[in-house]
Amino acid sequence: MGVQRQPTAGLLLIGDELLSGRTQDKNFPVIARFLGERGIDLNEVRVVSDVEEDIVAAVNALRARYTYVLTTGGIGPTHDDITADAVAKAFGVDIIEHPDAVKSLHGLFAEIGVKPNAARMRMARVPDGAELLISEKVRAPGFRIGNVFVMAGVPHIMALMLEMVGQMVEGGEVMLSRSVRIERGEGDLAVPLGEIQNRYDDVSIGSYPFKENDVFGANIVLRCRDEKRLNAAFAEVEKLV
Amino acid sequence: MGVQRQPTAGLLLIGDELLSGRTQDKNFPVIARFLGERGIDLNEVRVVSDVEEDIVAAVNALRARYTYVLTTGGIGPTHDDITADAVAKAFGVDIIEHPDAVKSLHGLFAEIGVKPNAARMRMARVPDGAELLISEKVRAPGFRIGNVFVMAGVPHIMALMLEMVGQMVEGGEVMLSRSVRIERGEGDLAVPLGEIQNRYDDVSIGSYPFKENDVFGANIVLRCRDEKRLNAAFAEVEKLV
Repeated sequence: MGVQRQPTAGLLLIGDELLSGRTQDKNFPVIARFLGERGIDLNEVRVVSDVEEDIVAAVNALRARYTYVLTTGGIGPTHDDITADAVAKAFGVDIIEHPDAVKSLHGLFAEIGVKPNAARMRMARVPDGAELLISEKVRAPGFRIGNVFVMAGVPHIMALMLEMVGQMVEGGEVMLSRSVRIERGEGDLAVPLGEIQNRYDDVSIGSYPFKENDVFGANIVLRCRDEKRLNAAFAEVEKLV
Repeated sequence: MGVQRQPTAGLLLIGDELLSGRTQDKNFPVIARFLGERGIDLNEVRVVSDVEEDIVAAVNALRARYTYVLTTGGIGPTHDDITADAVAKAFGVDIIEHPDAVKSLHGLFAEIGVKPNAARMRMARVPDGAELLISEKVRAPGFRIGNVFVMAGVPHIMALMLEMVGQMVEGGEVMLSRSVRIERGEGDLAVPLGEIQNRYDDVSIGSYPFKENDVFGANIVLRCRDEKRLNAAFAEVEKLV
């Protein structure tokens, strides 16, 4: 553990289509790895539907609790895209048309030959005080307000926005991990594993069982920020193989 | 809409390995479809780590809010399997060894030729008052207490437990849906779609954009419990193709 407080994060996935099971989310594991690489602990994920009060409640719960909150979904031009309004409400601020977003969208629409109608210009609306997640590749922007980063739900656009988020967050010490596959039932491993866990309370030891072709076993994953302690605990776990 | 109150559900996925991005959850979409087929609205999903207070807080938030809560993960024999204890704490009840679970586990262990040690017998521990999710195929049980159903995280075991949950929940009117793919930018569709949504406020209309080989478009998904209203709204949306 470092001396400074380890940064944490909550993730909010927004969209009826995820909850109906119709669309499978692809962003959660990408964001989880992104945060992990930066030493930011993802402590909680929530999935809510396109209902304003549910989004407001989740944003407020998560932003009070974690260093950073990331959201995906609901920032397009259609009537069901209500994330910007909900986040403005969560922060108790007005929603405005951001001049840089207006300019960027006008450029985009001229280029692809469509009219900047009211629906399309909805994508320039952000909570008052927000900073844009905008670039030459991302002309319809996401935004940051306070500790909340609001991104698109479409995975390739989300990925471009996430790169920008990477420039705006402070990472922590990266969590190190080692894992080993043991072909013994978890019930055999549980007692010695528990004893190792007791002696290494700064190492998180997870046991993930599998059964393959009638072979019972478990993948044991050790996680710690201190390499020496990680290796010491791992050496003990390896003896169980 | 029927006259009776529509049943709702919250889903809680428990496990550090999901939040680290190491393991991708496979249960959420399966459970989402299972609930959808029974007319139970999945309104919220949360993912939390193997930390007792986080599990307790999430269980209590969700069970107060939704008709049913389903959880996955953390009911094996190892030290990181703390879901039963956390759920007991959430309900303010003791944790007990359930005699039917003890019997089932003894049978299982005799059959596979392992000793019923203390770690393995942890899987017989459930909150006092819980009803088991147990069968000939599921010898290490899940359980139900109040409106909370606690299942394994391993997908094929979860699926067997989910079948039992299906016998224990009351479904509602199934949500009907129709969808159409429109190869026009969302910005073009947004105004007429919004108008249709305004006239059919009992139909949920979602727009999910795509871009494939430089073709912009959106999948428009309409959802409603009333077939006539769904078809009427869908006929209007189809005119936009």
